[in-house]
Amino acid sequence: MGMAEKEISQAVIGRLPRYFRYLGELKDQGVERISSQELSELMRVTASQIRQDFNHFGGFGQQGYGYNVEYLYTEIGKILGLNKTHNLIIVGAGNLGQALANYMNFARRGFIFTGIFDINPALYGKMIRGIEVRPMEEMAQFVQQNNVDIAVLTIPKSEAVSVAGRLTAVGIKAIWNFAHVDLDVPDGVQVENVHLSDSLMRLSYMLERYETQKNDL
Amino acid sequence: MGMAEKEISQAVIGRLPRYFRYLGELKDQGVERISSQELSELMRVTASQIRQDFNHFGGFGQQGYGYNVEYLYTEIGKILGLNKTHNLIIVGAGNLGQALANYMNFARRGFIFTGIFDINPALYGKMIRGIEVRPMEEMAQFVQQNNVDIAVLTIPKSEAVSVAGRLTAVGIKAIWNFAHVDLDVPDGVQVENVHLSDSLMRLSYMLERYETQKNDL
Repeated sequence: MGMAEKEISQAVIGRLPRYFRYLGELKDQGVERISSQELSELMRVTASQIRQDFNHFGGFGQQGYGYNVEYLYTEIGKILGLNKTHNLIIVGAGNLGQALANYMNFARRGFIFTGIFDINPALYGKMIRGIEVRPMEEMAQFVQQNNVDIAVLTIPKSEAVSVAGRLTAVGIKAIWNFAHVDLDVPDGVQVENVHLSDSLMRLSYMLERYETQKNDL
Repeated sequence: MGMAEKEISQAVIGRLPRYFRYLGELKDQGVERISSQELSELMRVTASQIRQDFNHFGGFGQQGYGYNVEYLYTEIGKILGLNKTHNLIIVGAGNLGQALANYMNFARRGFIFTGIFDINPALYGKMIRGIEVRPMEEMAQFVQQNNVDIAVLTIPKSEAVSVAGRLTAVGIKAIWNFAHVDLDVPDGVQVENVHLSDSLMRLSYMLERYETQKNDL
């Protein structure tokens, strides 16, 4: 397990899921081996980048003709922790919370969708992907009694900071945060932000820059 | 407009929306001026990083005590193109498409939600935030007739590549892509990906790494 102790850059980590996605597709297509050159062309990153990235994890033994696709897929999956299971709750059963419950294949990533909570009494008892919406007041006890590790926050930013505090107080280990605010959590609690508005603004920027440059020609 | 011609790194661009968000909150709180040091503490990035980032855009004239918050907010908004409007459609009226239509404040970013399309006849005519769901067959003509610049793709990856091709053929300028696939678009078409599964896997990785390290102690 020594490899996990090395500090691996955010950039490398950021690329792992994309490798995993392409390797999964190759595997589904029945491809058994692939060279770093072929993977490079498919993914539009340099072969040297691929080899460097893989070297962080021991290189995955490219021998003879390229990598074994199934092996590489399995190993990257293990690095991503996808071979383990964790219970997950969604906090906020509005449009986005419901969409994620229905749309994301949580189970495929080892996450078991276990509970969903809201402050709106009109939603209590509504079934979402087989799970009933519960009142927020039950959240903390539910997390403790059901060994929940991960919370998905799909609540307004005004609520997110205090809810995150209550969740970490009862032992939540990771937060997938869709609230448009940066959370302040204790050491050891992992946060991955999905700031959709920031993403939309990056798109707006690229559009603006392209149009400005075009008009300057 | 010369500043827009300089190549600005993806990292800087990636940070602009976050500056915009914090400045918007400061403005709403009635804060008139802020030093790079104060902004640094609030945002947890170094003051030198902030000054470097702002220097890409001419520095925003920090004089005397700090930056003028309103001015900085407005200028960064202009750089992000938020002072212009663009018509936007959503392709895919399933859970995620409906959630984005209802949840995102598109208008606040200068994006006018104009149309939504699906292949499911059961959804045709359904009103989503005041806009009726139309059949996919009408999409191309709608884009041409309504001066649509931006498409949000919330369709399965099996459809996304061909739909993106049809959209760019009729002049779409930017795609906000939620399909779990990398799109191949002509030069000049901007793509911003939101790969939710990749994000969830990064969270899984962080959780796995933390637990492994803890057990190694």
